[in-house]
Amino acid sequence: MSEKTKYLLDESQMPKSWYNIQADLPKQLPAVLHPGTMEPISPQDLEPLFPMDLIMQEVSLEREIEIPQPVQDIYKLWRPAPLFRAHRLEKALGTPAKIFYKYEGVSPAGSHKPNTAIPQAFYNAQAGVKRITTETGAGQWGTSISFAGNLFGLEVLVFQVRVSYDQKPYRKAVMETYGARCVASPSQETQYGREVLSKRPDHPGSLGIAISEAVELAAQRDDTKYALGSVLNHVLLHQTVTGLEAIEQLHMADVEPDVVVGCTGGGSNFGGIAFPFIGQGLRGGKMPRIVAVEPAACPSLTRGKYAYDFGDTAHMTPLTKMHTLGSNFTPPGFHAGGLRYHGMAPLVSHVKELDLIEAIAYTQVECFAAGVLFARAEGIVPAPEANHAVKGAIEEALRCKREGKSEVILFNLCGHGHFDMASYQKYFAGELTNESYDENELAMALSGLPSVPGEFS
Amino acid sequence: MSEKTKYLLDESQMPKSWYNIQADLPKQLPAVLHPGTMEPISPQDLEPLFPMDLIMQEVSLEREIEIPQPVQDIYKLWRPAPLFRAHRLEKALGTPAKIFYKYEGVSPAGSHKPNTAIPQAFYNAQAGVKRITTETGAGQWGTSISFAGNLFGLEVLVFQVRVSYDQKPYRKAVMETYGARCVASPSQETQYGREVLSKRPDHPGSLGIAISEAVELAAQRDDTKYALGSVLNHVLLHQTVTGLEAIEQLHMADVEPDVVVGCTGGGSNFGGIAFPFIGQGLRGGKMPRIVAVEPAACPSLTRGKYAYDFGDTAHMTPLTKMHTLGSNFTPPGFHAGGLRYHGMAPLVSHVKELDLIEAIAYTQVECFAAGVLFARAEGIVPAPEANHAVKGAIEEALRCKREGKSEVILFNLCGHGHFDMASYQKYFAGELTNESYDENELAMALSGLPSVPGEFS
Repeated sequence: MSEKTKYLLDESQMPKSWYNIQADLPKQLPAVLHPGTMEPISPQDLEPLFPMDLIMQEVSLEREIEIPQPVQDIYKLWRPAPLFRAHRLEKALGTPAKIFYKYEGVSPAGSHKPNTAIPQAFYNAQAGVKRITTETGAGQWGTSISFAGNLFGLEVLVFQVRVSYDQKPYRKAVMETYGARCVASPSQETQYGREVLSKRPDHPGSLGIAISEAVELAAQRDDTKYALGSVLNHVLLHQTVTGLEAIEQLHMADVEPDVVVGCTGGGSNFGGIAFPFIGQGLRGGKMPRIVAVEPAACPSLTRGKYAYDFGDTAHMTPLTKMHTLGSNFTPPGFHAGGLRYHGMAPLVSHVKELDLIEAIAYTQVECFAAGVLFARAEGIVPAPEANHAVKGAIEEALRCKREGKSEVILFNLCGHGHFDMASYQKYFAGELTNESYDENELAMALSGLPSVPGEFS
Repeated sequence: MSEKTKYLLDESQMPKSWYNIQADLPKQLPAVLHPGTMEPISPQDLEPLFPMDLIMQEVSLEREIEIPQPVQDIYKLWRPAPLFRAHRLEKALGTPAKIFYKYEGVSPAGSHKPNTAIPQAFYNAQAGVKRITTETGAGQWGTSISFAGNLFGLEVLVFQVRVSYDQKPYRKAVMETYGARCVASPSQETQYGREVLSKRPDHPGSLGIAISEAVELAAQRDDTKYALGSVLNHVLLHQTVTGLEAIEQLHMADVEPDVVVGCTGGGSNFGGIAFPFIGQGLRGGKMPRIVAVEPAACPSLTRGKYAYDFGDTAHMTPLTKMHTLGSNFTPPGFHAGGLRYHGMAPLVSHVKELDLIEAIAYTQVECFAAGVLFARAEGIVPAPEANHAVKGAIEEALRCKREGKSEVILFNLCGHGHFDMASYQKYFAGELTNESYDENELAMALSGLPSVPGEFS
């Protein structure tokens, strides 16, 4: 095996198509239900929110979906992203395992989010859309869609959860650098926002509320659509460019992975790295173990119920079947803001139900410890979200050490932590605790799940 | 010409040696003088501060100095760094020029500084040193030497200018992530720091004071040495890896540059990109125009005097002949902290005196405007320091447009701005002004330059 540190692909070797796992699933995804009728929706029902090209990707059963040339051209600003062999981390752990990581922090936004922001902006621009509304929590998605919208001449309006807006003003500055407008949510700009504020003027906001605001505005205007940075099938589809590149790069290293580890919040980063490998397995190739790592403070895959639920707090979105903590559940304010969502992507939930993946939850303190160990060995300071994948990979590597196995472990380092040093600061000051949710609140949120007609439940 | 977006080198193509411009200079550098005797120093005089390997690089006349294998191995964590063709910026400017940029923001620290931090830590560790002291302003250098020291098992103590320490606490968190200790300067840890604080307990600090503190501690202890992130010959030497890679990458693009632009504060980033091209020219190859861009608020090359001066405020360092605003000059607090130093690298000053380079100064508001234009076109948000190079390159591209010339412009984008969004925030809020120095203060600082024996002045 080669002893290289990193495996680079030339931009001519970048994937020309995304991989659609729906083509290979042994069982199709459950239907998506209309929030009013609780009946399966048609593509047309989604038209107020999304351009038809994205809606068709949502339901497509084609295995390969071509990446439009203008999207490929922009991907080249940072893609193909490097694959690293973590020689120094292996040595620090004393493990016989071979650890590889795919690094998405090289994008202009510093994370994997532009992989879907660019095509979403492209398809919207193609459809004649003038304005995109969206929500953002930690700010990675808002940054990425601002970047993407600007490249295609779209106005972008980002509703940022107020607590993040106040705590992380620099994120707003990045969005403004790309020409977008960012407002704190709940805001006065929507009926729902005004409603929430009238009840509680100092409401800290939540991702669910911000989604409701963004959806409300998009639904009202023909020239305005909504964009979501995770959860939906088309978002996971776009992210598969990472897993597809990793397959090529592991070929260069002359190995196949035994374990693929990804962190998962909404599920797009995880689906992006995992699905191309699952697809190979489903088509008769080697099927690696696939490990989804989620935060113990928001454990939708490991503690949630697999059930129909809304995507937002105002219950304006369609219902999807997914692992959910309940759309009324408010995750505690831990530091991996990108993993702080009540539901898991329907596709990730589905492959979990099909036993194609495993899931495990870790607390934030142990994840930060893993991130610091990684930074000292490999240099890159991971984003708090990525620390979950680092933790998962380290645990697999230590298992290999105990078992004397030199397995090949691949994980996705989805972003750098340069925007997140405040949380590292708290970690070093000993002020970081393992935020946990209230069990009663979870039980209540789960008992409040919407009831749907029996044939779908 | 190829229409690629980026030019990548495999790690096997990374330079094996640094380029030492001293081998090709038509006239040697002026002597370095002892701060006590004002006589030329010997290598031994520097031994309390630096390991002998670095001192010998300081005075070497060899053209190629081998990069030690352990340094090459660590460089591979991010090097070779990509070279980009700025297709979208060219289009935005409507220029016939071809703009290329070498991007150093892919390093774990997000800038070019690790290029010298790694070899400095290596040579110190080789010499049996246990502890490195240094200073940092904005924090890039402190971050980089913390990262490097950790990889070679060295303790690192960073004196951070108090005003930066207070304004940018996240930088300290990065240094701590790499296991270093960071204290605000002036501090109680040195005699000089205590002296300064006794006169003014709330002193905001300066790079010159922080250098004095770091040097004081290093001089006192045999197991402790000092490291400097710019200015010195060996630092510029290490940075030439960027220019050497750029030469190879421009070959891949089948072009030679007509103009090379770099921003310059202490001079290491500028020397790194420029010297390999100057060297080619001095050895009979094409000599491009070389443009050094400095901040109008700290214009050592364009407004300073070429004279002997100290590197620090306490006047403990040797004297070098350089473009200086006077070691007692306090640059105003503008946002490109990495360009906020009273002197220019002796080697950069020397090639300026030899008319091998041009220099120009821009104000910070026009540099931020250039950075925003760049970010909207190319995606990457540049560090405030890098905005100076962006501004310089844009001005060259607009000149090409006026003159109808399709020249090849290369510039060095020395770091990303993800740590610096507070300054962008101020820019968008209209709160950023063109900080300028007091002309009387500059005149006084210049009139207070040390007098040296006539043969050296």
